Amino acid sequence: MDTIYTMKKHNYSAGPSILPQEVFEKSAQAILDFNNSGLSILEISHRSKDFVAVMDEARALAIELLGLEGKGYQALFLGGGASLEFLMVPYNLMKENGKAAYLDSGTWATAAIKEAKFFGETVIVGSSKEDNYTYVPKGYEIPSDADYFHCTSNNTIFGTQMKEFPATNVPVVCDMSSDIFSRVLDFSKFDIIYAGAQKNMGPAGTTLVVIKEEILGKNGRAIPSMLDYAKHIKAESMYNTPPVFPVYAALLTLKWIKEKGGVAAVEKLNNAKAALLYGEIDRNPLFKGAAVVEDRSNMNVTFLLNNAEHTETFDKMWKEAGISGLPGHRSVGGYRASIYNAMPIESVQVLVDVMQALEKSVQ
Amino acid sequence: MDTIYTMKKHNYSAGPSILPQEVFEKSAQAILDFNNSGLSILEISHRSKDFVAVMDEARALAIELLGLEGKGYQALFLGGGASLEFLMVPYNLMKENGKAAYLDSGTWATAAIKEAKFFGETVIVGSSKEDNYTYVPKGYEIPSDADYFHCTSNNTIFGTQMKEFPATNVPVVCDMSSDIFSRVLDFSKFDIIYAGAQKNMGPAGTTLVVIKEEILGKNGRAIPSMLDYAKHIKAESMYNTPPVFPVYAALLTLKWIKEKGGVAAVEKLNNAKAALLYGEIDRNPLFKGAAVVEDRSNMNVTFLLNNAEHTETFDKMWKEAGISGLPGHRSVGGYRASIYNAMPIESVQVLVDVMQALEKSVQ
Repeated sequence: MDTIYTMKKHNYSAGPSILPQEVFEKSAQAILDFNNSGLSILEISHRSKDFVAVMDEARALAIELLGLEGKGYQALFLGGGASLEFLMVPYNLMKENGKAAYLDSGTWATAAIKEAKFFGETVIVGSSKEDNYTYVPKGYEIPSDADYFHCTSNNTIFGTQMKEFPATNVPVVCDMSSDIFSRVLDFSKFDIIYAGAQKNMGPAGTTLVVIKEEILGKNGRAIPSMLDYAKHIKAESMYNTPPVFPVYAALLTLKWIKEKGGVAAVEKLNNAKAALLYGEIDRNPLFKGAAVVEDRSNMNVTFLLNNAEHTETFDKMWKEAGISGLPGHRSVGGYRASIYNAMPIESVQVLVDVMQALEKSVQ
Repeated sequence: MDTIYTMKKHNYSAGPSILPQEVFEKSAQAILDFNNSGLSILEISHRSKDFVAVMDEARALAIELLGLEGKGYQALFLGGGASLEFLMVPYNLMKENGKAAYLDSGTWATAAIKEAKFFGETVIVGSSKEDNYTYVPKGYEIPSDADYFHCTSNNTIFGTQMKEFPATNVPVVCDMSSDIFSRVLDFSKFDIIYAGAQKNMGPAGTTLVVIKEEILGKNGRAIPSMLDYAKHIKAESMYNTPPVFPVYAALLTLKWIKEKGGVAAVEKLNNAKAALLYGEIDRNPLFKGAAVVEDRSNMNVTFLLNNAEHTETFDKMWKEAGISGLPGHRSVGGYRASIYNAMPIESVQVLVDVMQALEKSVQ
């Protein structure tokens, strides 16, 4: 345990968040000299052969890792953040006087709903707001005449995660910002998947959007160029100058996932990390989980002390252990351990050790 | 000359483009360890004290360098690129059934006009399109009932630059993407200034928007959150996760400008570099400038060989001299030397030396 206690910090930040160490090293090197070109990745033209290759590889690798090759999907790396997708989705999919179905499972779902209202009717098919989003709504019905259904696969703030997705005849749009590339799903059931890079995929500054091309161009709206998915696809994700460095760092992260054995191999590690930490939360009489057991997120583990008197001691202990980013979001309180792909199980063990040490210290 | 010929590349790329060497070194270091925190700048929360300080300092320094302190302006560092501002400007300023005046001085002005048309009437007050934008239109009148007037201070592709700005009673919006922080202007005459970072201000991935706050909230439109300048100002440029690394690198670049003595000192160096290169273009019988003399840009120097037969020899020579990024844009042809703030005069001398060596070789 001593060696782990003295290693680099254990970064539990919810996002921007921990990335593989080799992504830090390789991206820092590319800033000093990119591909032995004598130029920095920060000063090369986005139209240069070397960067076009980066963009092409990142787009292809995203599709490959999701198992969507040859299925009519296109991947884009856009600027602006996932929050921009909250309005691009209805702009591209909602008809004039149309309507869209939304699942209200947390803060970001609520933010997406707010933007959709600028474009038409939003039907909230299910909501767990009254229980402060401690669970994912289930058993809802999606109107068959909705232009699309929108959901959030993982709720970063509340620590819940959708384990199943509804069967529906309408296009399915999913904000996967905080669990993309963390588990295997049948991604071909989704028509648009989007994700801000800054959890499992790279630094802040770019957003992955994966689109089933055939669903575009059907809502009859005139769309400003920068908000038009079809224009970005036609320009091969270079409609305007892309966020060059964030895209490069995202490519390094996607390559790391592939080298690890792909999403299935990473999922196995994620399951082991989550089992280790939730196991301790359930075993240790000082702690309790914040979310209902069946909807617990394997990415963001939210938990609380049963007795607030231990807060000061616990906070001192985990800080001394080199842990950072553990405090929970103000709307939940307590703690949130974000254990994204790049978090080593050794770091999770450090947190578990601290929780056990706290238990001993109060006996 | 030998030492210069063997130094790091002379990067004449039009953008993304050369940045100060210390920006490369300090930003690479921050990726390995930011502020001795034991964490990478790529993995820290944007809400962390250290990054909030970065954002605050970058915003304040942008205002300071433009001489706009205490004049009612706010600076934002947004994601999405200057192309997103093409639609945010009319969304925030154009009234329903209103109109806006645009100066058509080049490709990017044309792109801005295209997006404004989604929101209302656009009056093109002047255009040099028929002469392939070799000059900046002058002597135009701006309708006094326009919601705003939009211009492009420097035309990256054509190598022209506005030397004077019109007096008008309507709000003035200026795309300064390719000459921001390169020369002193009375910036208080502008109501919105925006600039993609990737020329004089940092790597690609963030856009500076400087706004006179009092002009907002007057057009009566309901604006989606991510497109609403007022919301970004209220959130102190953190409405959503900002592009953390690009903003940090922009701060390093702004600090470098300040250390150089501010915009006035940098302008002096820019004038010397431009005089050196234009002087050679005018003196050397093998070359001619592409833009009219009075509108020549001090940032993007466009020029042509009088005799295309020398192309192969010249291209070989400048490549051997370690120069990169010199070919002109396809819509102008010839060459374009982008000599942004960070380009040393020694590198400009290398290009001049090559031009003179070509002259000698053909005699």
